[in-house]
Amino acid sequence: MTDVRSARTGGADYRPMTDGTLAPYLAGFSEVAAILGGAAQDWKVTEVGDGNLNLVFIVRGPRGSLIVKQALPYVRLVGDSWPLPLDRSFFESQALMIEDAAAPGLVPKVVLFDAMQALVVMEILTPHIIMRKGLIDGVEFPLFAATLSEFMAQSLFKTSDLYLPAAEKKRQMAVFCANTELCRITEDLVFTDPYRAAKLNRWTSPQLDDIALEFRADGPLKAAAQAMKLKFLSHAEALVHGDLHSGSIMATSTDVRVIDPEFAFFGPMGFDVGALIGNLILAYLSQIGHEDKKGGRDAYRAWILRQITDVWTLFSARFVELWSTEGKGDAFTAELFTDAASRAALAEEQARYMRALFEDTLGFAGCKMIRRILGLAHVADFESISDKDLRASGERRALRLGRDLVVNRTRFADIEAVAAAVVAADATR
Amino acid sequence: MTDVRSARTGGADYRPMTDGTLAPYLAGFSEVAAILGGAAQDWKVTEVGDGNLNLVFIVRGPRGSLIVKQALPYVRLVGDSWPLPLDRSFFESQALMIEDAAAPGLVPKVVLFDAMQALVVMEILTPHIIMRKGLIDGVEFPLFAATLSEFMAQSLFKTSDLYLPAAEKKRQMAVFCANTELCRITEDLVFTDPYRAAKLNRWTSPQLDDIALEFRADGPLKAAAQAMKLKFLSHAEALVHGDLHSGSIMATSTDVRVIDPEFAFFGPMGFDVGALIGNLILAYLSQIGHEDKKGGRDAYRAWILRQITDVWTLFSARFVELWSTEGKGDAFTAELFTDAASRAALAEEQARYMRALFEDTLGFAGCKMIRRILGLAHVADFESISDKDLRASGERRALRLGRDLVVNRTRFADIEAVAAAVVAADATR
Repeated sequence: MTDVRSARTGGADYRPMTDGTLAPYLAGFSEVAAILGGAAQDWKVTEVGDGNLNLVFIVRGPRGSLIVKQALPYVRLVGDSWPLPLDRSFFESQALMIEDAAAPGLVPKVVLFDAMQALVVMEILTPHIIMRKGLIDGVEFPLFAATLSEFMAQSLFKTSDLYLPAAEKKRQMAVFCANTELCRITEDLVFTDPYRAAKLNRWTSPQLDDIALEFRADGPLKAAAQAMKLKFLSHAEALVHGDLHSGSIMATSTDVRVIDPEFAFFGPMGFDVGALIGNLILAYLSQIGHEDKKGGRDAYRAWILRQITDVWTLFSARFVELWSTEGKGDAFTAELFTDAASRAALAEEQARYMRALFEDTLGFAGCKMIRRILGLAHVADFESISDKDLRASGERRALRLGRDLVVNRTRFADIEAVAAAVVAADATR
Repeated sequence: MTDVRSARTGGADYRPMTDGTLAPYLAGFSEVAAILGGAAQDWKVTEVGDGNLNLVFIVRGPRGSLIVKQALPYVRLVGDSWPLPLDRSFFESQALMIEDAAAPGLVPKVVLFDAMQALVVMEILTPHIIMRKGLIDGVEFPLFAATLSEFMAQSLFKTSDLYLPAAEKKRQMAVFCANTELCRITEDLVFTDPYRAAKLNRWTSPQLDDIALEFRADGPLKAAAQAMKLKFLSHAEALVHGDLHSGSIMATSTDVRVIDPEFAFFGPMGFDVGALIGNLILAYLSQIGHEDKKGGRDAYRAWILRQITDVWTLFSARFVELWSTEGKGDAFTAELFTDAASRAALAEEQARYMRALFEDTLGFAGCKMIRRILGLAHVADFESISDKDLRASGERRALRLGRDLVVNRTRFADIEAVAAAVVAADATR
């Protein structure tokens, strides 16, 4: 991995790229030119990003195409200018490379990272769509659960103390310790702002005014959410993606990829698993707004529900399998567990570990659900429902279930119990 | 805090100091000369270390005296040469300064750290003795529990996410991530070697041969010890001292100080509290070897037992008090807990937190007890008992109790239950 000290991003020569400047710039990198084919004047550049956080370009050449993602030094939201560090492109490119090594082929390949321009050139994914859009449109992705469970098991296991030597893990961890500004966004927006009268909060109003107020006065919920925040801050278990929702997944019927790990840092594994499951639950509870007649999405609801149980079941089985077969890290020194009795004791400890990870997952899932309804950043699953009463009815169910997951995370017997709670929450419609 | 990058220790000009070279070297530092008074030729230098890991000198001048501790690039143990990084003097001096800021006056003041010579000049503690020696000799230290509980509460709280802004904590954490070689010693010697046939292990033989063999085949114990090791590796809760036993405490009847934090890193708080309590239990169970007649140390046993309960009780109360009054860190955002109902919910969460810390403490205490009897590094409490049968009888009780603390750490109701288990273990004598 590149050393963070040799990769100070941005600087005096940093320039946001344009359709006109990008091709000549890229022509200076032979590895990029080789993939595109031809010369700079043959390359077609199209800006496709929303310009909010990053510039995103598709560059098409005679031989191949690439994506170019350049960080902007600010984010425009709610009309204000909000500075954002350019070095997030460094953390994103580093995380992509580590994830690709751990789970080959499940993230876009990085072709080039240029620290000076805070710019990553990477493999283009086509004809993939953002999974969240598919969830709104009722699209099934047959490889979703298998791929995401594999991605999470591999990327979390292989950056943990169960797999890495301690010195190597600490070295990587020290690098990602510097990704504090993006971590801070999560700390504020996910764990804190929804529970106080923060200026940037918004919700479907007036429909949810009562529950927004109620949550801000809900002691047990606030204490539990802050307990999850403390884990987020202090449990450096593995390199987590840090933003693993359905908007960070691109998929077709035959391929599923994870993108955008700019929030990556060494944190609690349950944060990734919880983000994914929490967003699937939001997708489920928002189906009321996307069916043409009552019950029109019942089959699709059943598909989402299966993804929730499958992704946990497959992930946890795969994680334990990796631990048992490739557990060469400094934790749980393999040499101690060679005889049958010791193997049995290890299996019991693994079960305890997975139970704790399950509870973390539910706690983080609940926090992620609540923040998407009462905080700054909302999800299209609900936002795209124009009937505000209908939208708010689903959001209210999600808030109640989210609270239950955070406060009572130790009381769910298993993922089937969570699925049952999702169905029960939705049955009130 | 000095940046680690500007403090690469050792180098071409590194030279182990001698009685002859130290004074002229120190004369180059005005802050040192000012404390000693006079000039280099007036200073009396005496080497007082055992020369195993560090050179330790007392330097006496007309006005004052100082301690000089210089790291050696190796440690001699069991006749072998074992390289050890010089940068431990950097981590020690950094930790001393952070601890002094958090808990003023409870560690020696650092006067000078010279990275090039891997050398720390600090306040001399006199007429203090190493507490472990006092525990063997039956000396009571009236301020022990009050001081150590204050030291632990302050140093752990004030380097945690309960007190520090996340970015500042991550910055400090990144620095200490580099202290991997000393952490590795703990990982191996405390958590792993006692449970396998490691070359450096030793124990009172043949008396303990059976239990040493038994522990190496004890699946539940090995799994539990490795679960503690995983916490040690991945739970970056606070800057822990990392070696907080009675040999790292210097005391008189009116003063108690903590020394030697070269193993410091961001780890689980329970590691410090457990090290301290585990070593007090060893002191208790070794009294059989230090009394002139049976029962001759009963009053002293009672004093040690009171220190065990007092140090936990005072520590936990102080920690929660600091949290409630100075909890300005990014975890448990104070602003969320201003009304009475929210304060009550926070208090419940604090109780859960302290319960988890208590269980960690017991797990680490047990690991520390076992490693001192079956691993490489033993304690004088037992080593100084020349009657091997008597020594082994106490060590066996400590091993059984240590195992109980590790495996059943969640089953002790409170510190009184631990104290009762200590008395019960000793009652078999």
